[in-house]
Amino acid sequence: MNPALTKIGAQMSNLTGVRAIMKDIIETLQASQGQELINLSAGNPLILPQVEQLWRDATGELLASSEYGEVVCRYGSSQGYAPLIEAIANDFNKRYGLSLTSNNILITPGSQTLYFYAANAFGGYASNGELRQIVLPLSPDYTGYGGVCLFPEALVAYKPTLDIDASNHKFKYRPDFSQLSVTDKTGCIIFSRPCNPTGNVLTEDEVNKIAALGASYNVPVLIDSAYAPPFPALNFTEMKPVFGDNIIHCMSLSKAGLPGERIGIAIGDEKLIQVLECFQTNMCIHPSRYGQAIASRAINSGSLVQIAEQVIRPFYQQKFAVLENTLNAAMPKDLPWFLHRGEGAIFAWLWLKDLPITDWEFYQELKKVGVILVPGSTFFPGLKEEWQHKHECLRISLTGSDDEIVAGMQLLAQAAEQIYQRTVVSA
Amino acid sequence: MNPALTKIGAQMSNLTGVRAIMKDIIETLQASQGQELINLSAGNPLILPQVEQLWRDATGELLASSEYGEVVCRYGSSQGYAPLIEAIANDFNKRYGLSLTSNNILITPGSQTLYFYAANAFGGYASNGELRQIVLPLSPDYTGYGGVCLFPEALVAYKPTLDIDASNHKFKYRPDFSQLSVTDKTGCIIFSRPCNPTGNVLTEDEVNKIAALGASYNVPVLIDSAYAPPFPALNFTEMKPVFGDNIIHCMSLSKAGLPGERIGIAIGDEKLIQVLECFQTNMCIHPSRYGQAIASRAINSGSLVQIAEQVIRPFYQQKFAVLENTLNAAMPKDLPWFLHRGEGAIFAWLWLKDLPITDWEFYQELKKVGVILVPGSTFFPGLKEEWQHKHECLRISLTGSDDEIVAGMQLLAQAAEQIYQRTVVSA
Repeated sequence: MNPALTKIGAQMSNLTGVRAIMKDIIETLQASQGQELINLSAGNPLILPQVEQLWRDATGELLASSEYGEVVCRYGSSQGYAPLIEAIANDFNKRYGLSLTSNNILITPGSQTLYFYAANAFGGYASNGELRQIVLPLSPDYTGYGGVCLFPEALVAYKPTLDIDASNHKFKYRPDFSQLSVTDKTGCIIFSRPCNPTGNVLTEDEVNKIAALGASYNVPVLIDSAYAPPFPALNFTEMKPVFGDNIIHCMSLSKAGLPGERIGIAIGDEKLIQVLECFQTNMCIHPSRYGQAIASRAINSGSLVQIAEQVIRPFYQQKFAVLENTLNAAMPKDLPWFLHRGEGAIFAWLWLKDLPITDWEFYQELKKVGVILVPGSTFFPGLKEEWQHKHECLRISLTGSDDEIVAGMQLLAQAAEQIYQRTVVSA
Repeated sequence: MNPALTKIGAQMSNLTGVRAIMKDIIETLQASQGQELINLSAGNPLILPQVEQLWRDATGELLASSEYGEVVCRYGSSQGYAPLIEAIANDFNKRYGLSLTSNNILITPGSQTLYFYAANAFGGYASNGELRQIVLPLSPDYTGYGGVCLFPEALVAYKPTLDIDASNHKFKYRPDFSQLSVTDKTGCIIFSRPCNPTGNVLTEDEVNKIAALGASYNVPVLIDSAYAPPFPALNFTEMKPVFGDNIIHCMSLSKAGLPGERIGIAIGDEKLIQVLECFQTNMCIHPSRYGQAIASRAINSGSLVQIAEQVIRPFYQQKFAVLENTLNAAMPKDLPWFLHRGEGAIFAWLWLKDLPITDWEFYQELKKVGVILVPGSTFFPGLKEEWQHKHECLRISLTGSDDEIVAGMQLLAQAAEQIYQRTVVSA
């Protein structure tokens, strides 16, 4: 049956960004019988034994308590499970000297859903027909921001400036404030910090500047803190969350070991939270409660923060070091390759300047030698202008084993050398 | 902070239907200190001990297995948890002689979310600007259908005909096929069977007629089976689910004891399922998995169906009998009151014909004598024409204790008698 779709139906049937190539990756993996593939494409965190044990213990406690029935067998509040909201308010007030009340917090079924609410409540068409933009101040950024926009024409991303440390083959993206435009046509601003896919952490100064631009037009700024402290604490550089009147601090428990349970958290001004909560009430009543119940226990006991800092962060930080060291040793010194500074998240981001083929073609070449990465061009949602750089980057997952990362990066170095060389010869 | 909202933001900030009066009910309950209130407004199912035990046992099994980490600590497929999909396909194929594959099934974070996907993928504005209607063939119906429409002007409900058994003070709604219009402007059709709020079960004939009307214009028909067999089996009259090429059979585990976990299930044509799945991928990645994992166990073992039939159904069916018997005994015979046939769900629906005040005013009168029901006018989403009947009905929850139901219905009978009398005297 082929039903007619609405405009929104057609838009939402469209798998954007990295999801569009997932199909190719899955097919490649399935067709690889006999060949050993090194899969460094995954965004799915690994199961770390201490993290699993944390959630098993909390589940055991929940089962042993009389709370279980109320959690699972009853509808709950649209705002989220009250003990979790309270746990977060207490933790954040103590940790960051805030004065949050429960009215400042909303729990959602994953943070992707939270961006869906915000992108469409603040971005898209106003009643007068005017288009309100969803601004991504620093492209590349999380590919999912493309998927949540019911009106893709509302999404506008800005090209960054490149802060290059040529001799060390390192670079870092910086917001280009000379270009970034926030006006009364801006509906909201979104960025991730630490950034998926690049591992970039915007400085406090940069964040404050963006927030101030938003504030002057009454524009909410969503800071996607899915990798930030206090949990999962996947920052490898010192960073503090930034709060503010027009900032919605957005968290996720996915990288703190609960991706299966879909828990997003929004912290912000009461009025903003209210808008998002109503959207949620109408759309899905409330988020699932089991995950919220075990999370409230792990936050109250302090074990979630402790495991984030002592297990999750060091695990991925060490993977980044393995990757960086391998590339430093294996990549030809005279090639213009630049690794983005590894400031956080679970990916490395490699820029192959003047790569003679596209990132997509390079992805295909790598598949031939048994390595799967993600071509970087899928991570520029909303960036409309052509930019060579978009086709010169790769996202490399830190979820591989040390051996896989070493072997994968060595194969990548060989492939890169050949491809740059081939062109020099043919030129 | 008061950010500017888009048209969709304003629409979704608007709590419609029964949710709009929930605030009043909560405030009434909170202000009632000292006064004993009989609350028969709830849609939240009760915790039945055997049902809670079922989910506790399944959770214990999950914790004891090595599956736990994969369920909770990893992202899953957008389509849902594979063992649950398989369990449903197997159960339905055996039970109803179908030949479902996993491609026919989608799991969503609650069935409300499923209606959100469908209402907006099939209903709303097409690319050519044309409005595709979301048709409710039998009003009153579930109030949440109003909340899920991004474009409320797309929602169109049809007045039913009334099948009245005057001497027994009973009635039943029937679809008015002389009015019901399905055309190439129809995006989709939705109705609940058994019906929340009325307890009506459309006959197989009526369903087939509606499905055929949809089929002739390639229009999907969503049958909200949140109360239907095989689970929660909250039908008090014989009924079989109806399947068909353009039918999306929609289920929920909320009344089977898992409202906290938000599990919706769509069964239908592969192409329809694909559209909904993509919407889900973009909007929320995937539904929470813990609830899916315990549900798959309870379906495979057969215990969910068994508990639905032997515990859940008799519990609420007996409540309806208490309510019906009390009204029969307490309501003045000469008043034109009609109880909707109790064919299923967890509510009774009372029509007070020619009620001299509105349902909302009667709700206020009942509060004064300590009884809280839900005024019926909130259950006619999409019915634009004025209709006196809309203001003459009440929804009564079957989640009260026997004593509460008896006392509540006796107080209601007294209040009704006085109100009808008062008007006769003053007339």
